[in-house]
Amino acid sequence: MSTPEPEPEDRRRSIGARRSPETEAAILMAAEAIVTEAGIAGFSIEAVAKRARAGKPTIYKWWPNKTALLLDVYHRQKPANVHSDTGSVEEDLLVFLTGIFAHWGDSGAGQIFRYVIAEAQRDATAAAALAEYARERRKQTGTIFARGVERGELADDIDVGLAADMVAGFIWQRLLTERLERDPARLRQVARQMVRGLSAPGT
Amino acid sequence: MSTPEPEPEDRRRSIGARRSPETEAAILMAAEAIVTEAGIAGFSIEAVAKRARAGKPTIYKWWPNKTALLLDVYHRQKPANVHSDTGSVEEDLLVFLTGIFAHWGDSGAGQIFRYVIAEAQRDATAAAALAEYARERRKQTGTIFARGVERGELADDIDVGLAADMVAGFIWQRLLTERLERDPARLRQVARQMVRGLSAPGT
Repeated sequence: MSTPEPEPEDRRRSIGARRSPETEAAILMAAEAIVTEAGIAGFSIEAVAKRARAGKPTIYKWWPNKTALLLDVYHRQKPANVHSDTGSVEEDLLVFLTGIFAHWGDSGAGQIFRYVIAEAQRDATAAAALAEYARERRKQTGTIFARGVERGELADDIDVGLAADMVAGFIWQRLLTERLERDPARLRQVARQMVRGLSAPGT
Repeated sequence: MSTPEPEPEDRRRSIGARRSPETEAAILMAAEAIVTEAGIAGFSIEAVAKRARAGKPTIYKWWPNKTALLLDVYHRQKPANVHSDTGSVEEDLLVFLTGIFAHWGDSGAGQIFRYVIAEAQRDATAAAALAEYARERRKQTGTIFARGVERGELADDIDVGLAADMVAGFIWQRLLTERLERDPARLRQVARQMVRGLSAPGT
């Protein structure tokens, strides 16, 4: 179908222009293929437009800049299995940490994300794209802690957003200083140290 | 005196060439003045050499790249009062978090550090300089936790380096997403959530 549809419940709802799902998919696939084949150095809105047979203005209508498009590609490549609901905050965190470090290390995803963070330090539109992305990731990671509070596993006075920030901060800093953690015992220790402080008294 | 002296116990001991303390001081003062007056955009080894009346090769002998020199300037500008030994890990952390966010927010230091992190994502020599710096900061922050273990305030099975990584990760990510935390109550909550997980049983 080519009729523009209402935006799905996704992270770009705030952008006014309605999208054609086919064009969007074509642009994202083209962007993904270019990153995979040519790396970030070969990535440009121009190259994506050419490959997707879309106009540059169309791309810019939906993605205000290269960084926003890269972040979408990055997000789509993230394996779904980094998020799980095991019934234990420590286990959920362990799954998340293990999955994200593996994904960053084994694919080009870590390089993409490093690039995005670097861009955001000198370009205000890139900074806005990263800030929005970080905000949504914080909500997602926060659900791990919120479920723990709900279950009575975590103290009910913890700040779920802060807990999520600590997780994000830890993994970002490791990525940015090239110290991805892959050792299962160390990852367990990280998850444990992060959770213990949040535990309900007596648990 | 112009006789080269043995390197002081500082963080550049590993660099082979011996320094003349006067030249070193002149270079650092020039670098600091340039950053203050012209910002990072106006900062270059060439500009520093000119202002310090030093040769570029002299600067490069001691600082392998612009990032290493910027990091030294950054480090020297850090107020000493971010580190304290109050007898309580939570208080020490609160002092540190409050001090570092204030310093980043009130001076140009936050911008310098953001720039350094960004540079490190695309330049291997900048990455090496940042990695070395982060390693030393980790040791310094780790002492807060090590003292807590020593006092019996923290559990003796905690990983002091990991705890320091979590602190660094948290502040870095806040800086990189322009969310410096200045609210005393929120800072207290951060310090508390970081420490509680590490507390010795029964404390």
